[in-house]
Amino acid sequence: MDRIQQLSNQINERLKDTGTPTIAAAESCSGGGVASAITTWSGSSAYFLGSIVAYVNEAKASLLGVPPQVLDELGAVSPECAKAMASGARAAFGAAIGVSTTGIAGPTGATARKPVGLVYTAVASDHGVRVEEHHFPGDRAAVTRAATEAALGMLTAELDRFTNSGSPK
Amino acid sequence: MDRIQQLSNQINERLKDTGTPTIAAAESCSGGGVASAITTWSGSSAYFLGSIVAYVNEAKASLLGVPPQVLDELGAVSPECAKAMASGARAAFGAAIGVSTTGIAGPTGATARKPVGLVYTAVASDHGVRVEEHHFPGDRAAVTRAATEAALGMLTAELDRFTNSGSPK
Repeated sequence: MDRIQQLSNQINERLKDTGTPTIAAAESCSGGGVASAITTWSGSSAYFLGSIVAYVNEAKASLLGVPPQVLDELGAVSPECAKAMASGARAAFGAAIGVSTTGIAGPTGATARKPVGLVYTAVASDHGVRVEEHHFPGDRAAVTRAATEAALGMLTAELDRFTNSGSPK
Repeated sequence: MDRIQQLSNQINERLKDTGTPTIAAAESCSGGGVASAITTWSGSSAYFLGSIVAYVNEAKASLLGVPPQVLDELGAVSPECAKAMASGARAAFGAAIGVSTTGIAGPTGATARKPVGLVYTAVASDHGVRVEEHHFPGDRAAVTRAATEAALGMLTAELDRFTNSGSPK
């Protein structure tokens, strides 16, 4: 079992019986990898509401509510966009937790300030919105997989907050 | 290269340079597999707008516009739902072609009239809406992969219609 399967299986074991907290995703550079990993497991339909794979900026704005000025001024590969995507996934599906990925999987799409492998992942819940910046090595497949793994890792950490503190104030 | 990779690579080779026709997906039982397959390939961002993985009925209705009476009376695993999802993907992303999957991946979720492995896939474009019924053998992973492959096959056939006839009347 690889790391993506391990993480998604752990998430499934924690949530499949209770169905809470519910989870939704907003994916760009992971390309559906987060949804695919979670739905690998029987029982995932109890808590996984779905994912919006928003591969173009128009979809990030229209379906996830990413502000146009974030896309225009900071770009889709930015911490602000990742945070807005995670919050947008929550809102679109009515989920307790939203998780997102946005980055440059390559081999094209890099700029001087945004190299291939730059990825932001974020989670949003009533506990707040968190974002992480990553610089992943390797080719397109490696970056896509690393982004998926990072998103699942943030999800796991977010679930600990629910377990440890119950509902936030 | 397996069949999913072959089909998605063929689609990419046909569309990556022109960027048309644009494609969007609506996925249930494939769980993001269609989006993952297409976005494997560099250049897919030219024509692939995204996918809505609508794992719960509420998302099929709210994000894809599947009529509530279809979900209530015919169920999410029905040709009518598959067609509405394909049309809904087109509308949500503004794509020329929408493709969808809905089915019972198992091992749970089967009913007397809807066994594990029953999958509907559909495509929608200005050329019309087409749906196929499948009965796939195997476990959850096999059904998910077969659904993804069938959706990519329908996409390929739909692209032939665009190539052969240009824009529809």
